[in-house]
Amino acid sequence: MSQTSVLRSNDSRELVEDWILNLRKPCIIRDCAVGECLTKWKPDYMASTVGHKPVSVHESSSNRLRFLKKNFTYVVLPFAEFIQKASCFSRAGCGDCAGDDCDRRYYYYRAVADDVRNTPSDFRRDFPSLSPDFTVPSFLQPEKIFSCVLRCSSADLGLWLHYDVLDNVLVQVRGRKRAILFNPEDAEYLYLSGDKSLIHDPENVDLEEFPLFVKARPYVYQLEPGDVLFIPAFWLHYMISEDFSVAVNIFWYNLPRELYDQKDTYGNKELQPYFRAAQGVDRALKQLEGLPIDIQRFYMRMLRSKIDKALGLSRDRSA
Amino acid sequence: MSQTSVLRSNDSRELVEDWILNLRKPCIIRDCAVGECLTKWKPDYMASTVGHKPVSVHESSSNRLRFLKKNFTYVVLPFAEFIQKASCFSRAGCGDCAGDDCDRRYYYYRAVADDVRNTPSDFRRDFPSLSPDFTVPSFLQPEKIFSCVLRCSSADLGLWLHYDVLDNVLVQVRGRKRAILFNPEDAEYLYLSGDKSLIHDPENVDLEEFPLFVKARPYVYQLEPGDVLFIPAFWLHYMISEDFSVAVNIFWYNLPRELYDQKDTYGNKELQPYFRAAQGVDRALKQLEGLPIDIQRFYMRMLRSKIDKALGLSRDRSA
Repeated sequence: MSQTSVLRSNDSRELVEDWILNLRKPCIIRDCAVGECLTKWKPDYMASTVGHKPVSVHESSSNRLRFLKKNFTYVVLPFAEFIQKASCFSRAGCGDCAGDDCDRRYYYYRAVADDVRNTPSDFRRDFPSLSPDFTVPSFLQPEKIFSCVLRCSSADLGLWLHYDVLDNVLVQVRGRKRAILFNPEDAEYLYLSGDKSLIHDPENVDLEEFPLFVKARPYVYQLEPGDVLFIPAFWLHYMISEDFSVAVNIFWYNLPRELYDQKDTYGNKELQPYFRAAQGVDRALKQLEGLPIDIQRFYMRMLRSKIDKALGLSRDRSA
Repeated sequence: MSQTSVLRSNDSRELVEDWILNLRKPCIIRDCAVGECLTKWKPDYMASTVGHKPVSVHESSSNRLRFLKKNFTYVVLPFAEFIQKASCFSRAGCGDCAGDDCDRRYYYYRAVADDVRNTPSDFRRDFPSLSPDFTVPSFLQPEKIFSCVLRCSSADLGLWLHYDVLDNVLVQVRGRKRAILFNPEDAEYLYLSGDKSLIHDPENVDLEEFPLFVKARPYVYQLEPGDVLFIPAFWLHYMISEDFSVAVNIFWYNLPRELYDQKDTYGNKELQPYFRAAQGVDRALKQLEGLPIDIQRFYMRMLRSKIDKALGLSRDRSA
């Protein structure tokens, strides 16, 4: 496990900005002013304040959700009922039964806009009754914010390893959370398919199936209510809610807007230059298609070593 | 050392063609009818027949010629004088001295056309007095021949590891030769720079400098006068003349002509589709240049895994 870093709100704003803008490493920022949500957002309060607004949530009998080989279903529930189902048991059990014997269902809610295809999520708009309780951390520039996502989860629930293309902070409001992050430099050890990893649970990895995983260096962050975790764009992350958990996470444009996919409402579509680069490589591979297969393979390796060479040069520049 | 294969001229033409067209593996074809050169081309005969035509030859104090870090010079000599210098000593020494004490110079001649920039070599045109002594092996189609190159070498001289983009046969006319070949699938273990390897002598490799070389599987062929070695396009080859050595090697178009670089007179310029593919990859890498270096590197690896994926698929197809 690699070292983690904790800043405090009474550290200078320059220090926080230095981490975000220059160091570009994850860190916990503690004691931020994030509003009354820290004391108010108990399950009963949230249920009664939001009421029966229907929400689409993830439901599973597994406590480690997989996106790539889905082991959950989407169900639509009134928000109050979802909160009741998600909060009715602690990590140890529901009180009515002895933990593992329980026919427990795990729930996870990631808020999306009503018009999810065109509009990024913003809980301040979609949950107006909760909005006054939350304050965006002062080190973020409001005009750069892309989305502001409410997330609620059952206790003991882990969520798939993935990355986003935007910087974000996770404001942990209620419950404890364990965050496992990986540097994008380790991506080649993490068996990615798109923005998600084929590795189901980075705390329990089958090394026969995923032998390269031993080379990946996890950064582990233990979050308490009120903690703010900075997750730089492209850092892979796996999140385990240890208790019933409520969080708000705020994505922002850390690069010029025109670099992002303009239709992306989640923050996980690749940057535009990569789209064009990937098309270029696809076309390059297509050029070789008329050749005998052994010559194609020979030239594919030569193309690959062009990229290896560029990686070597860029490592020297970034070192 | 991997297995080698020897065919004989009284094997059916179909068998030879099957190796060349379908198996695409190197082989020795023995007892081919290649003309009176086998008995006639002794040094004195060649010198007196060709006379004093000036030729540009490689001269070195080393018996292992390097192209990439050149350890030879080009000198222009009358052909008869070159033949005398190249043939005056055997592997053991020149007779006048005790081998290694000798201030020996090694010579190598690779015939080129007078107009080398525009015309491939053809010794049948440029050495008309030798031409009647040589017969092109009957399994080759005359209309596909690209070049027909006379090569003469001192005893004990090794020549750089490289590949050509055309199929070719080496007709060993005089002296013995040792040929060390590598499958193009092993190219990634051979430290190529363009069509040539940085490995100076594959029989004496510094494994600290070239650790991957241990994974490469050499195919070793021991050629006697009269032997014809088929070297498929892209197979890497290193040649050691054990005696004063004369050979003719014939390159031919094994793919449609438009795939080749039309300005190539040596047979070692990459095929046209690769030029276009390489440009495509260069442009793809350029697309990423505006991004921060860590994101560039992340996306370069994604581009590389696109190629890895294509290599995986093509391996399945070729298996």
